[in-house]
Formats: sequence, structure tokens, C-alpha cells
Amino acid sequence: MNRVAPIAIQKVTASTMGEAQPDLLAVEEPMEIRLSYGEITDRQQRSISVTMRTPGHDFELALGFLFTEGIIQSRRQIHSIRHCTDLGRQEAAGNIVRVEVAPDVTVDLRSTERNFYTTSSCGVCGKASIEAVRNTDCPVLPPAEAFVDADIIHTLPQKLRATQAVFEYTGGLHAAAIFDQNGNLLLLREDVGRHNALDKVIGAAMQQDLLPLHQSVLFLSGRISFELVQKALMAGIPLVAAVGAPSSLAVQMAQETGMTLLGFVRNQTFNIYTHAERVLV
Amino acid sequence: MNRVAPIAIQKVTASTMGEAQPDLLAVEEPMEIRLSYGEITDRQQRSISVTMRTPGHDFELALGFLFTEGIIQSRRQIHSIRHCTDLGRQEAAGNIVRVEVAPDVTVDLRSTERNFYTTSSCGVCGKASIEAVRNTDCPVLPPAEAFVDADIIHTLPQKLRATQAVFEYTGGLHAAAIFDQNGNLLLLREDVGRHNALDKVIGAAMQQDLLPLHQSVLFLSGRISFELVQKALMAGIPLVAAVGAPSSLAVQMAQETGMTLLGFVRNQTFNIYTHAERVLV
Repeated sequence: MNRVAPIAIQKVTASTMGEAQPDLLAVEEPMEIRLSYGEITDRQQRSISVTMRTPGHDFELALGFLFTEGIIQSRRQIHSIRHCTDLGRQEAAGNIVRVEVAPDVTVDLRSTERNFYTTSSCGVCGKASIEAVRNTDCPVLPPAEAFVDADIIHTLPQKLRATQAVFEYTGGLHAAAIFDQNGNLLLLREDVGRHNALDKVIGAAMQQDLLPLHQSVLFLSGRISFELVQKALMAGIPLVAAVGAPSSLAVQMAQETGMTLLGFVRNQTFNIYTHAERVLV
Repeated sequence: MNRVAPIAIQKVTASTMGEAQPDLLAVEEPMEIRLSYGEITDRQQRSISVTMRTPGHDFELALGFLFTEGIIQSRRQIHSIRHCTDLGRQEAAGNIVRVEVAPDVTVDLRSTERNFYTTSSCGVCGKASIEAVRNTDCPVLPPAEAFVDADIIHTLPQKLRATQAVFEYTGGLHAAAIFDQNGNLLLLREDVGRHNALDKVIGAAMQQDLLPLHQSVLFLSGRISFELVQKALMAGIPLVAAVGAPSSLAVQMAQETGMTLLGFVRNQTFNIYTHAERVLV
């Protein structure tokens, strides 16, 4: 139930590569909500949602989700809430919340049938997801060896800002940009959703027959979630850098799949979270 | 296909309420991806996802999504991509993308069956969603009249920062906080996902029998999407303020449901987007 996870990072400034030092990551793990409902003689059980969340206050999250999505109307409709575990799935412990609705309550699940959308957070356990990705048809990244100068990384925030036509006006859009190893901007896309911005830029690369992006750097205007690392991996991108922080699961996945992950790229400094071999000073 | 939308805002500083002035919002609208696939003699059609996105580069978004989710492997598997419209649903124009997969291609939809999660972005049109919310069992907010002092709004960012135990360390968590009309913090929750942070804080309020939150101010550490406004509305919150910018659909929904929306609350200034009557100087 930790909300932060320790990690060793390397802090790079304009003049130094820095030493390894301890830092903290926001923990990101999937949580599944399972609902039991219906008459005592005809109980139904159903998986309602899987969301990537920071552990802690899980029952509040389940309650708030069920209420704000219109599935339940009051706390009194809930008979019990508890964590459950699947036998044989040790890693799912604490990540499944079972909500028992009182027998006399009619739940409205129409909205969950009509309004779903897909996500790459597959299954209830991040570890399982990572294994699934690694063991299936996921592209293999090039070896982690000298790839880009730290000096070039330092220039990316300014280049992104100069190019973000919309961002300057509204402050409301995420950006995903593809640079080459010399820091030349190849593609930039923006969206209210960070995963959409990345999908757009990868879709554009696909249209231009640029996949896999083995010679490219991906730069993101925000934070780095597990989902973004997974999408970058699909496109074969060996180095992902961002203005914001990565989550714990993003770092774990980058580590295990051989991706270089850089965060807090701003003001002539950045943190290296994984596979520092690709960064040159 | 506009990525920004004009709006009149009121910029409030420490000493003045300011005049109405023009500003720009990032546009947020739902987009549905529909896939046609299978043998020529046995074509299947299926709605794959609905995502809230900024219009523009829709075909790239569809391609990138299908590729990064592992549904297609290359551009050559695509026969055509185009926008389509439903007869009689004028408002959906431009928000549905139909992707025709070549007949000889086997698409793998297992991941979309296993990995969905629910979202409140119901249907393909924001307008339709807002209508649906207004016309069903959505709570009605109290009348828009004197509610909170501008001076109190100015204090919220500092109070949030002082309380965000985790944020200070990782820079990786969104926060949602409930304040009373005097600026006293009642509840704060954090998460890697902004909708999760809000669900948690509303779930906590529910557990404490505080719903509806008619006397409360919701303060968010990030940007305001349509989904967040909808969730706040379900909890009966009449005033939502945030450090970041609202999207176009968030403003539209707040306007139509009588909610006061404040953005860019930082450095002793903020913007009023809707229902200024609740803010006192």
C-alpha cells in the first residue's frame, strides 16, 4: 500500500553527469473493481473497471467511482467492501476490490456497458502486464549503448515550447514530440489526453513509414505513466524523456525492456532512471 | 476541427475582479474508432474505443491507437480511413473514424475484450453527453449566488502544496481537495490519475456522509477535463477551481449545469470561466 517507491537516479546537469542518488517515485498499480449485486437467490458478479491508480484509499476510490459513474446512489446501498485475492495470483493481492451491494438495491450498469474504452493496462497486476508484453510480440529495442548527448537533451524543453503553437495560448494541451539523435524535431502532436498525443505522433510516424523509431528520442510535456512507456515500446523508441516525473511502473517497465527513461528534463538538468548507457556527456 | 475555442473570461487578481476579456480553450471532444475487418464475404464491424481528444490528426490518432494497442501491425494492413457520420446525429460529424482493414488481415481484438475500463464520456458527442447528464438523474446545484471570497480562492494553492505530502517528494501525483467556504481543508486525496484522485475524495466524503457537497469548493492540482466536471457535478459541488486550464467541454458543461469554474489559480490571480456570481471581492 505504499504511495511512493524508492529508486536510485542519476542527476545530470549542464556540466556533470552526477552520482547515483536516492529518490522517490509515485507508485502506479492497476486496481480492479468487482461488483456483487442482485437478489440473494440470484447474485451476479461482474468486473466493473480496471484503472491504473496509486495504492491507498482503495475503498474510497471504489465508492467514489461507483457513485460518480451513477452505478450506486448512496453509501447505504453498499453491504461491504474488501480487498480480495485470486488464488495463485500473488501479485494481484491488494489490487482487487470487491464491493457487495445490498440485495434490495437495483444497480444500473447500462453506463458501463455503453461507455468503455480500451487501455493498455492489461489485467490487474502490473507485473503480469509487463510479463505479457515481454513474452508476446512486443518489439525488441536496440542494445543500450551510446545514443545521444546530454547537451542535446538539455535543448529539448525549449524546442518543444517554441513549437507548441497551441500550448502557448491555452496551457491546456499535452505534447508528444519525436526528435532525431541530433535534436532535430521530426514530429510534434498535441492533445488534451497525453496518451492521445503519443498515439497521434506514432500514427504520424507510421503514415510516413518511419517505424520502428530505433534512431529517435521521444519527448513528452508531462509525466510518464506505464501506458506511455508501453506505447513507446511498441513503436521501438529506445529513449523516452519528459518534463515531468515517471511513475514506479513506468520505470519498472523501462528497466525490464531495455528502455532509457529520463525525467524532470528542465532548467539544464534531468534525472536518469534507467539504462544510462545511452546518454553521453 | 478546431484545436482551440474562444471564450470570454474574467481575470481576478489580488486587488481587482478584472474585466471580461477574450481567451482560448483547448478543445476536448469524444472520438470513436470503428473497425471493419474480416473476409470479404463475412465483414465484421465493431466500435473499438471512445476517447476524449482534441480534434485534429484524427486518422493518426486512430492508426497510432490501433498499432500501439497491438490490433494492427503495419500501415499496409489498412485499406482506408475516413470520417463517417450517423444519419440524424449532426453533432457526431467529424467525431467517428472508420478504419477498413484489408480483407486478408487477421486482427487481434482479444486485448480490447479483456482490457476495457469505464469512463463517463458517454457516447460520441459531448453535446449529447451533456444533454444526457442534464436530463437524467444528475443532481441539481444550488443557485449561483454569493458563495466564496476571492481572497480565500487565492490561498488555496499554498494550502494544497503545504498538505500534499507525497507531491513534494515525487512531483508525480495529482491532488483533489475539498475546502469549505472559509478555505479550511476538509479532505485531500492524491493519485497518478486525476480522475482517481477525485473519485477518492468524493468516496471519502460519501463515507463521512458529507454528500451532497453543496457548501464545498473543489480544488484540483492540474487541468480540468469534462470528466472531472461531471464527477464534481454528481457530488453536488457548486464551485471547482484548479491550478491548470479547463478544456472547452469542461467549460461548456459547467456553464450549462450552473457550476462555477475557476482556472489558473496561482500567484494571486485566477480566471473565472463560468457563473462568476459565486465569487465575491
